[in-house]
Amino acid sequence: MIKAGIVGGTGYSGAELLRFLALHPQVKVTTVTSRTDAGSLVSSMFPNMRKHVDLRFVQPEVATLAACDVVFFATPHGTAMQMAPALLKSGVKVIDLSADFRIKDAATFRKWYKMEHTCPELLGQAVYGLPELNRDLIKSCNLLANPGCYPTAVQLGFMPLLHHGLVETDNLVADAKSGVSGAGKKIELGYMLCEVSESFKAYGINGHRHLPEILQGLNSVSNSKVGLTFMPHLVPMIRGIQASLYATLLTEQVDLQRIFEDFYKDQPFVDVLETGLSPETRSVRGSNNCQISVCRPQNGKTAVVLVVIDNLVKGAAGQAVQNMNLMFGFPEAAGLDIIAAIP
Amino acid sequence: MIKAGIVGGTGYSGAELLRFLALHPQVKVTTVTSRTDAGSLVSSMFPNMRKHVDLRFVQPEVATLAACDVVFFATPHGTAMQMAPALLKSGVKVIDLSADFRIKDAATFRKWYKMEHTCPELLGQAVYGLPELNRDLIKSCNLLANPGCYPTAVQLGFMPLLHHGLVETDNLVADAKSGVSGAGKKIELGYMLCEVSESFKAYGINGHRHLPEILQGLNSVSNSKVGLTFMPHLVPMIRGIQASLYATLLTEQVDLQRIFEDFYKDQPFVDVLETGLSPETRSVRGSNNCQISVCRPQNGKTAVVLVVIDNLVKGAAGQAVQNMNLMFGFPEAAGLDIIAAIP
Amino acid sequence: MIKAGIVGGTGYSGAELLRFLALHPQVKVTTVTSRTDAGSLVSSMFPNMRKHVDLRFVQPEVATLAACDVVFFATPHGTAMQMAPALLKSGVKVIDLSADFRIKDAATFRKWYKMEHTCPELLGQAVYGLPELNRDLIKSCNLLANPGCYPTAVQLGFMPLLHHGLVETDNLVADAKSGVSGAGKKIELGYMLCEVSESFKAYGINGHRHLPEILQGLNSVSNSKVGLTFMPHLVPMIRGIQASLYATLLTEQVDLQRIFEDFYKDQPFVDVLETGLSPETRSVRGSNNCQISVCRPQNGKTAVVLVVIDNLVKGAAGQAVQNMNLMFGFPEAAGLDIIAAIP
Amino acid sequence: MIKAGIVGGTGYSGAELLRFLALHPQVKVTTVTSRTDAGSLVSSMFPNMRKHVDLRFVQPEVATLAACDVVFFATPHGTAMQMAPALLKSGVKVIDLSADFRIKDAATFRKWYKMEHTCPELLGQAVYGLPELNRDLIKSCNLLANPGCYPTAVQLGFMPLLHHGLVETDNLVADAKSGVSGAGKKIELGYMLCEVSESFKAYGINGHRHLPEILQGLNSVSNSKVGLTFMPHLVPMIRGIQASLYATLLTEQVDLQRIFEDFYKDQPFVDVLETGLSPETRSVRGSNNCQISVCRPQNGKTAVVLVVIDNLVKGAAGQAVQNMNLMFGFPEAAGLDIIAAIP
Repeated sequence: MIKAGIVGGTGYSGAELLRFLALHPQVKVTTVTSRTDAGSLVSSMFPNMRKHVDLRFVQPEVATLAACDVVFFATPHGTAMQMAPALLKSGVKVIDLSADFRIKDAATFRKWYKMEHTCPELLGQAVYGLPELNRDLIKSCNLLANPGCYPTAVQLGFMPLLHHGLVETDNLVADAKSGVSGAGKKIELGYMLCEVSESFKAYGINGHRHLPEILQGLNSVSNSKVGLTFMPHLVPMIRGIQASLYATLLTEQVDLQRIFEDFYKDQPFVDVLETGLSPETRSVRGSNNCQISVCRPQNGKTAVVLVVIDNLVKGAAGQAVQNMNLMFGFPEAAGLDIIAAIP
Repeated sequence: MIKAGIVGGTGYSGAELLRFLALHPQVKVTTVTSRTDAGSLVSSMFPNMRKHVDLRFVQPEVATLAACDVVFFATPHGTAMQMAPALLKSGVKVIDLSADFRIKDAATFRKWYKMEHTCPELLGQAVYGLPELNRDLIKSCNLLANPGCYPTAVQLGFMPLLHHGLVETDNLVADAKSGVSGAGKKIELGYMLCEVSESFKAYGINGHRHLPEILQGLNSVSNSKVGLTFMPHLVPMIRGIQASLYATLLTEQVDLQRIFEDFYKDQPFVDVLETGLSPETRSVRGSNNCQISVCRPQNGKTAVVLVVIDNLVKGAAGQAVQNMNLMFGFPEAAGLDIIAAIP
Repeated sequence: MIKAGIVGGTGYSGAELLRFLALHPQVKVTTVTSRTDAGSLVSSMFPNMRKHVDLRFVQPEVATLAACDVVFFATPHGTAMQMAPALLKSGVKVIDLSADFRIKDAATFRKWYKMEHTCPELLGQAVYGLPELNRDLIKSCNLLANPGCYPTAVQLGFMPLLHHGLVETDNLVADAKSGVSGAGKKIELGYMLCEVSESFKAYGINGHRHLPEILQGLNSVSNSKVGLTFMPHLVPMIRGIQASLYATLLTEQVDLQRIFEDFYKDQPFVDVLETGLSPETRSVRGSNNCQISVCRPQNGKTAVVLVVIDNLVKGAAGQAVQNMNLMFGFPEAAGLDIIAAIP
Repeated sequence: MIKAGIVGGTGYSGAELLRFLALHPQVKVTTVTSRTDAGSLVSSMFPNMRKHVDLRFVQPEVATLAACDVVFFATPHGTAMQMAPALLKSGVKVIDLSADFRIKDAATFRKWYKMEHTCPELLGQAVYGLPELNRDLIKSCNLLANPGCYPTAVQLGFMPLLHHGLVETDNLVADAKSGVSGAGKKIELGYMLCEVSESFKAYGINGHRHLPEILQGLNSVSNSKVGLTFMPHLVPMIRGIQASLYATLLTEQVDLQRIFEDFYKDQPFVDVLETGLSPETRSVRGSNNCQISVCRPQNGKTAVVLVVIDNLVKGAAGQAVQNMNLMFGFPEAAGLDIIAAIP
């Protein structure tokens, strides 16, 4: 049993981490922090955890967290980079669910996150935690940058096409849709039920922070420079991301189905559906699975890839646990053996 | 006061017609038909109409309907073409909300609707009822083919770009999303709350019937042949269509905002939002409005048009009433002076 | 045309007032106030009102509002009582949608609203605006206290039983359920989509502020003192109140259906359904109607009354307009001729 | 490892059984039946089970099912009683999630279910599977009648009050609310998203089939005859039951909180919340927990008990697995160690 700490345990990703880790056979959560709720029972805030979690929130302090084997940051950006250096020095492995260590270029980080990076020297050693791309690097790393939710979905969808050089890379389109929990537990007018239920819209049309992360990832698997139009939308539901990806094929002489199945055949959490099926978000809700299908409408020159994940699981806490499993040599699916509940 | 009949009054479009016509200052609904519910009160099925509508459903018969000045068909495809010829001969104006008279080419109709057209000779005189495209033709027609919901949204979004020849026409992408009422009042597993709520997916990925209608319309305003990838999605909400349209600009030296505003400046039901805004479906819910915005993400070469309508209003019954107003010389907005209720 | 002002135009009740008044044939809205949004277009906040409302929010000032014939307060409690005295002196009729003038007893007001009343001398002249109870008083009043949403539903349901002395009055039960908009436009965690969607719960179990208002109203029509257990619940939907009311019959020799139909036969906005039907909130959504049914399960001694209203309409802004119509001698339903949109 | 069969594997309870049993450490599901889908993969119907369940549906035949150690019936009423006798004879334990064996009196069954019971001789040996009431009987039974969803919630709420004789028993009120999945996977107009979403209503007001089951259970723990008004309501959400129970206290000298905590202190799946809290359905969604709170509003003579369960879990499949665990001597919580996912 390793000891795990969660910084930022009151948010949605933190709660999901607790849900998985409380039942994980090789992990004991010893510390859950919250600046504002320190002292109160975790199960007071999350009555779903009654009888399962009897911890109290504590203040986030390096001294306490250094007793853990692994510390997860489920915080807004800007927090992990303050505490990670000291924890790493103490021999703690750090898994950051925020954006602090995702962008390799500090200037790009500053531009999109309006904040100076406080430990750019760690950006080089941080591993981007998309296991389908970086499994071996993940296994040996101490500082893991857990991918964002949209970036996970969009990269998993485009990767096979770009890896094989099958499409024009300068005019990719990612039309992505997310449930409201994608915004985190932000208390803002725009996420209140009365404002967002029974409605649908695009948002972030002037530029979404996940764009540079997606571009960095797609460029890493593409031979030619990627140009992407990324348009996120808000769906009146709690969980789930669906992305419809559009790319112009360089050749129509290609068996897309075969290529996708081969590309993901050894990935425990990516599942390529049979031709003609369309994945729906509920099939992966609460689970760490990604379901993908690919098609070529009217046998035309446009390839369409449809991807679904749970934004809080494969798009956040579940992928973080998957990464932890890899980092500690546990079975990759430990603690993640979950079947989505339908209906 | 003209006399109006509604064939197929039990479905969602029929109910919407009743909602508008019951309060229309120049129309009296005299006949509402239903094969299965003939004899029962309309307000038994629709308790929202108690105190407003005291009609009973009757069997759909030409003899009865011929006493009307206008007859609306809010039926599945295949019904209007059976009754329209006789009604037209009787001097009744026909407004068909189904697909029977939308597609000019009988072979294309047969291919997509798996049905032989029974009066192809009328296809030529039927006017496609998109007022923003065909207002003058509509004013003088007797047989009106009311557009589909997706086709309304997608055409209104692409029309300014195609009319001005601003984009590549062979690789347009329409990523469209609809509330569940878009499927009509079909009693199928896939539209039950437990199956569709809290989930999101693409559907019709092997070809949606609205594709040929959209292509026919877009080609009519484009100088070069249109190639379109049309991908519909199901949103867990009742009403509303949002379409995100993607096109590659032929030139970046273009003021898209100005072009859209000019194109729609005289259209009472199309509203171009200011730069940077994104329309949401709730703003037009229950009303006949279409709201549009246009942008060019990261100042790139892709133009993105965002369109919202209420699929049952501007996408069906509201547009039908707008067309009726034009056909009878009423004020175009008569009976449609509605403000969407928010929240 | 009279001139109307709305204080607190950014909330949900204020927006509903605008929706009705913008299309009201005898009213012109001249002033809409907002402390925080003064200067900006009303239609910037409410894009649904584009093309219908071109006012800008202004600061709430007596000088400006005094130019109106009627001023509506759609504010949290505590505001109307500050401004009403001056407006009344200026000859303006005041309709208060908040709780300031509902409770006749200033001590009770203080106890439940944790606030001293600043003009208790006006409590006597304020008329409680439930037209089904007080129509004649309303017609001649200058200061109207518009009822709360729960109180409207619960009183309309119990009134016939209490008026006729048919039930034990000391153990009434009102199990009431409200959509989330009942909380107003409060930006709190508990009303965010992710917190409230796909869940159901009772709330306010330690005492809800509508209790004293309901008791005051019920006691006014009852011969013996009323004891009520009032339990509100939160429904994962935007609009609508449903109340299931339970009372022990003093006699089983009573035709409840007849009594309810007679009691409400002249009320334009109360509709008693036929025996065996159960009203649903969507049938009155967006409209000023109240639908009621009454039954006696298993022919036992418990009478059950089922009531639905739209909390923002008959439970707030619609009833306020109905009251305004009465106060100014307009047709009672002017501006309220609305059919709920289904689905 | 025991072998389990599921008759009726395509419905919601059947799917939930599969979700639990597929991951149960002591159970292997060998047979899942469906008359209409025999031959097709279970995971074709339930894509959430891909990679977890590779069975195909088979025809329901005693010969096949007799090879199981336990057979679950997740069928409409009328099926289990056809097959149970033969299976029992073969030594198979039977757990029936339908109503066939719940009602001890065959005449009452006939009256409410409009069907003659085909094996009334088994009614006596069938054990009603509410572990909090009948744990010891369950451990040794071969034929288990799994309780209905409403009956589970209502009985768990009233049992402590009735057991201790604290309330008047002739005028109990149970105002119960259920998510739409409570209706099962019935394809009917009334359960389509467009018909049920954004609305709330009472239903079954002329008598719901769960009433006799509830009465039978309550009478079994009460010294005096129970009179109950049971009013079910439909909530626009997928899962969850909330019941608000009202009873008149015989004495106010009673510590209800203590009584409830004591009554349930050894029950692994019943959790009494602290005074002043109100349970919400999402806290138990997908889990086998029941959360309860009790209060006395305004310190009056009415006791109010608030109960939540997941109708498909503690109200159906989860309780069935709990019962199976008891019947086979497994740990009572085996396979049910689940934390509800929030949000």
